Amino acid sequence: MTPRSLSLLAGTAASLALVSSPLRADEGMWTFDSFPAAKMKADYGWAPDQAWLDTVRNAAVRLTGGCSASFVSGQGLILTNHHCVASCLYDNSTGENDLLDHGFVAAALNDEKKCPGQQAEVVTKIADVTADVKKAIGSLTGEALTKARDARIAEIEAANCTDREKTRCQVVTLFGGGQYKLYTYRKYSDVRLVWASEDRAATFGGDPDNFNFPRYDLDGAFLRAYENGKPVKTPDHLKWNPRSPEEGEATFVVGNPGSTSRLFTQSQMAFEREVRLPVIVTTYSELRGRLIRAMEESPDHEREGLDMLNGVENSLKVYIGRMKALNDPAFTGKLAEAEADLKAKSAGNAAIGDPWAEMDKTVQAYRALYMAYRFINPSGELYGYAHTLVMAAAERAKPNAERLPGYTESALPLTEKRLLDAAPVYPWLDELRMEWSLSKAREYLGVDDPDSKLLLGKESPEVLAQRLVSGTRLADPEFRKQLWEGGLAAIEASDDPMIVYARKLEARQRELEKQVDEAYSGPATAAAARLTDARFAAYGDTLYPDATFTLRISYGKVEGWPERGQQVPFETTIGGTFERATGAPPFDLARAFAAKEAQIDKSVTFNFVTTNDIIGGNSGSPVIDKAGTVIGAAFDGNIHSLGGNYGYDPVLNRTVVVSAASLQEALETIYPAPRLVKELSVK
Amino acid sequence: MTPRSLSLLAGTAASLALVSSPLRADEGMWTFDSFPAAKMKADYGWAPDQAWLDTVRNAAVRLTGGCSASFVSGQGLILTNHHCVASCLYDNSTGENDLLDHGFVAAALNDEKKCPGQQAEVVTKIADVTADVKKAIGSLTGEALTKARDARIAEIEAANCTDREKTRCQVVTLFGGGQYKLYTYRKYSDVRLVWASEDRAATFGGDPDNFNFPRYDLDGAFLRAYENGKPVKTPDHLKWNPRSPEEGEATFVVGNPGSTSRLFTQSQMAFEREVRLPVIVTTYSELRGRLIRAMEESPDHEREGLDMLNGVENSLKVYIGRMKALNDPAFTGKLAEAEADLKAKSAGNAAIGDPWAEMDKTVQAYRALYMAYRFINPSGELYGYAHTLVMAAAERAKPNAERLPGYTESALPLTEKRLLDAAPVYPWLDELRMEWSLSKAREYLGVDDPDSKLLLGKESPEVLAQRLVSGTRLADPEFRKQLWEGGLAAIEASDDPMIVYARKLEARQRELEKQVDEAYSGPATAAAARLTDARFAAYGDTLYPDATFTLRISYGKVEGWPERGQQVPFETTIGGTFERATGAPPFDLARAFAAKEAQIDKSVTFNFVTTNDIIGGNSGSPVIDKAGTVIGAAFDGNIHSLGGNYGYDPVLNRTVVVSAASLQEALETIYPAPRLVKELSVK
Repeated sequence: MTPRSLSLLAGTAASLALVSSPLRADEGMWTFDSFPAAKMKADYGWAPDQAWLDTVRNAAVRLTGGCSASFVSGQGLILTNHHCVASCLYDNSTGENDLLDHGFVAAALNDEKKCPGQQAEVVTKIADVTADVKKAIGSLTGEALTKARDARIAEIEAANCTDREKTRCQVVTLFGGGQYKLYTYRKYSDVRLVWASEDRAATFGGDPDNFNFPRYDLDGAFLRAYENGKPVKTPDHLKWNPRSPEEGEATFVVGNPGSTSRLFTQSQMAFEREVRLPVIVTTYSELRGRLIRAMEESPDHEREGLDMLNGVENSLKVYIGRMKALNDPAFTGKLAEAEADLKAKSAGNAAIGDPWAEMDKTVQAYRALYMAYRFINPSGELYGYAHTLVMAAAERAKPNAERLPGYTESALPLTEKRLLDAAPVYPWLDELRMEWSLSKAREYLGVDDPDSKLLLGKESPEVLAQRLVSGTRLADPEFRKQLWEGGLAAIEASDDPMIVYARKLEARQRELEKQVDEAYSGPATAAAARLTDARFAAYGDTLYPDATFTLRISYGKVEGWPERGQQVPFETTIGGTFERATGAPPFDLARAFAAKEAQIDKSVTFNFVTTNDIIGGNSGSPVIDKAGTVIGAAFDGNIHSLGGNYGYDPVLNRTVVVSAASLQEALETIYPAPRLVKELSVK
Repeated sequence: MTPRSLSLLAGTAASLALVSSPLRADEGMWTFDSFPAAKMKADYGWAPDQAWLDTVRNAAVRLTGGCSASFVSGQGLILTNHHCVASCLYDNSTGENDLLDHGFVAAALNDEKKCPGQQAEVVTKIADVTADVKKAIGSLTGEALTKARDARIAEIEAANCTDREKTRCQVVTLFGGGQYKLYTYRKYSDVRLVWASEDRAATFGGDPDNFNFPRYDLDGAFLRAYENGKPVKTPDHLKWNPRSPEEGEATFVVGNPGSTSRLFTQSQMAFEREVRLPVIVTTYSELRGRLIRAMEESPDHEREGLDMLNGVENSLKVYIGRMKALNDPAFTGKLAEAEADLKAKSAGNAAIGDPWAEMDKTVQAYRALYMAYRFINPSGELYGYAHTLVMAAAERAKPNAERLPGYTESALPLTEKRLLDAAPVYPWLDELRMEWSLSKAREYLGVDDPDSKLLLGKESPEVLAQRLVSGTRLADPEFRKQLWEGGLAAIEASDDPMIVYARKLEARQRELEKQVDEAYSGPATAAAARLTDARFAAYGDTLYPDATFTLRISYGKVEGWPERGQQVPFETTIGGTFERATGAPPFDLARAFAAKEAQIDKSVTFNFVTTNDIIGGNSGSPVIDKAGTVIGAAFDGNIHSLGGNYGYDPVLNRTVVVSAASLQEALETIYPAPRLVKELSVK
């Protein structure tokens, strides 16, 4: 479950889903203000009280790379997944010193390494601004609706976070438009790497074992939040508890599930199955093939392409899993029944009307725009820089309330950080991505399509990608800084070929954005708001919103599941790794595992599964016991969890966890870090 | 429309479809014994008589590479598509002399070049053996049915073609099991290349323009059939007529459509949409990506990989088009209606019963076997040789009636020819294919699946593919010949690693074949036979069977089609090529086009479209006018024709043709071949 998956989702439809009903056991990614304590108590005989909830909430960390995490010491120490720090290892690697391959242990505080683009955020306040935003929307529709909404959101965010160095305000749309909440975060934009194993220890079994279980992955790592060059004090942290889990014990996962579509209407689901998933799966598969072959060309390519390939393969597995779920009549039948039930319960309610028909109409309109909207943005780091610079130059010159969402006062600091942080760019990789995305644009739009012609002119994807990547200076952070600071004048005067190209596409990108707002996003938001009303009316207020990469809590228990007539055990041990190893990648032992086999306690629980309801974005979430202590970090779901985007199946969906016990064994024996062991053991 | 698409379809379900009803205008791939003359006469005011039909039938040629063709002179001269001879150009190329790139004109008869693995076949007799085969089947089901059927077919074929040097007998299953016909062919196993343009002239626009129109492709070529080292006398040939087509004029396409699924039941269609097409599209896309990147590595790779890439991209476009058709509710709605109509008309007919329910049950059973059946055969030329040798060694030791279909007395000569003909093998390409297919097997079956373990042992796909490809001697035709002639003893004694590997897989492959026969092929054949009875009972006898790569005739007319509110013109001119050219591949002009622009008559019709109902396998088919003369060669369908696998849409489906007029212009001016011009002009 790689965080890169979030960033790969170009042209993704906004999440517009609504909560499911009736709830199935342990289902739900709950907001902290509506934890279903009564239901949990009925099922488990125990539920956390408000103090318990407040404590874990204050220790929960969101990483802007697309992951979750938690503070586990008073000195800003952060527990997350290894795959959530892979980009940091990658960005700090060179041909001579491949940190991703070899792992990293900071012997002293001074050795801890900055992670480019990374930022840690802790929620400090959540306020309901639904009435405020809905008032601004009034009875508007189409693009007018999205404009009014975004303007009001920009104002609320700007007014509530005046200190943009340390705080971040974000108005989150819940229930696809049914509720709006203002989240205020304390942010830490200096995040450093403390400890990570060899990549092979964390990704043993690689893509073949990804989303599978039994599993043997040391997918944990430690970061530290800094401010003014010093570790941040974090008195609100979770207690590290490196014990083995017990079968059946209650567990909580606290983190930021990225996005779900649990109650897409049938027409939204049909669009996914018939249009969106096939194009994603097909084009990503080709990218995967290009990458695999390119990485076989040299050790440098192997190292430089790995992070990208991991991201692509992870995304692919997710999308293939979703496609499979939506191609399973038994699964989709249940979703259709749920819609029919809600329709029946809403019949005759004039205030609700027929939002299903409206959604159907807007999805039909979106179908006509989708391919152009999807392919008008080429892929690549360098193009991404150019695009941000070109859009920002125009947007920053506008009043805050008139800007596109990514460029408002509250959003700009992170946009700027991501643009200006130094990070390596590998021209061959960028060229590969750009060539791929341009050739796919031509394929799906057609040679004679005006957007195809706009993207390519008289050049081929190969020639154009080569010309732009080899000619641009945007790999240099200093050059990006000049253009950023130079604003619109600098962008208009630039003859950097990538900037020139991004300028050429800008008008059409804005036009398509506007068309999609008018035809789809606006009407869908309006329909979703009424679908939300219908759900609350039909099922009462024990509802959870679809995931939005904001803080949620899920409860569940340690438990295996039945597979082809057999029960999958709930845990693996470190010793199992040695039995599974074949010597051939990705089933080769990490060097330290092989070297220290005699010293390693093989009986320690390595990975385990729970019934907690999670999804991508939850990676790195602490897994917490009733006592409020951390017994592991969630790093994956099982293969059945991939349908979880659309619906939770309590029998089959499982969260996969790396145990704190195995991380402790690694810290003590495999990748020794006595400084960290000491820090984690402080009461 | 590349012939290689046929050979790529590993693990394809047998064609089990039935004819559609009611017929839509110009729909139908008719057998010669049931040409719907009355219907055509009603629609066109004219229809061919028996003499006309006999003449064109005798001139029609099937190429075993998966294409169609026709004799166009008395000296065995064959017209087909350039893409049907691409493999021959490729196999005759070297790094110094790239015939595919440069084209080929045989100045004298002596210069004509042998095409490895190629064989030309002309139907001489068709006999109905339905009663005979059905009697052998009796009331058997499951694997017993397929065994009895295959045994009787082997006996009929062996008894009717005793001269296996010059004849080939093939019992063809029509209507998925409703009829059996014995086709007797005169075969010519020495086929030589006479004339072909530069590849770019034939594939201008490449994959982006494939299955599209307007089009500018010189996709025609000439072969010649030889016997005893001399051109074959072919008094029954078509007259070459290099004139432009007239809009609305009647056209006939005579050739061998490969396979259609026009009346799959709804459950068969669901299997395609939900299971088979997604796995094909996803895995082929990755193969495409690997190939594209590998070909960018060197000019040798570029040349050596091209034929494979063309085949993969062509197949992908076909499958993506089919997936799109089956994901279009308007399209599938019509298919569902047709099934409902047949069910209604068959209600109460006890002899028919409920074959739909039986088909549903057998498809469910097939779903459980499909992935193993699909992935148990690794990809690659060298593995393919090993597999054929291992299977043949065991099969040839059995009595004819007990052999698997590909190894009966009647099938063996072609199997042997394909195995022993010298053809280049590029180890890097074979390794790429094998690595890809093994890694996909592991992905889809799962790491812990017994078949996965059988395929890989403790090796990785990369290591295993490298070991087998680098270690085998099967690239040497002499070595293959020794093993072929050595029979079972030689195979069992061989320590060639690829042979050892193929031996290791053999038992499981046979077991799966048997399970699929028992659970799917047998019951589906029985159900299809009763569905055929139902159709004939409901709709009378104007039915055409699904395509089976046997000779068919379709009628239609020269006509464009409406696209996004505009009419696509029915023809292009050679001059249009120069307007469409961008200079960047695949829209760069062929060298000869650029060099001879001043001499070329730009007004000549280049490509045109007709309403004829065709599909892959029809490539190279002569397009014949009312006078029985050849005015072009079919080489493609438009993008809408891809849904034609499941149903024909008269408004949108079109055949794309390269005009005889443009080929004449090429023979005279662009790639001059005065010898050929003279031969074609003989009356």
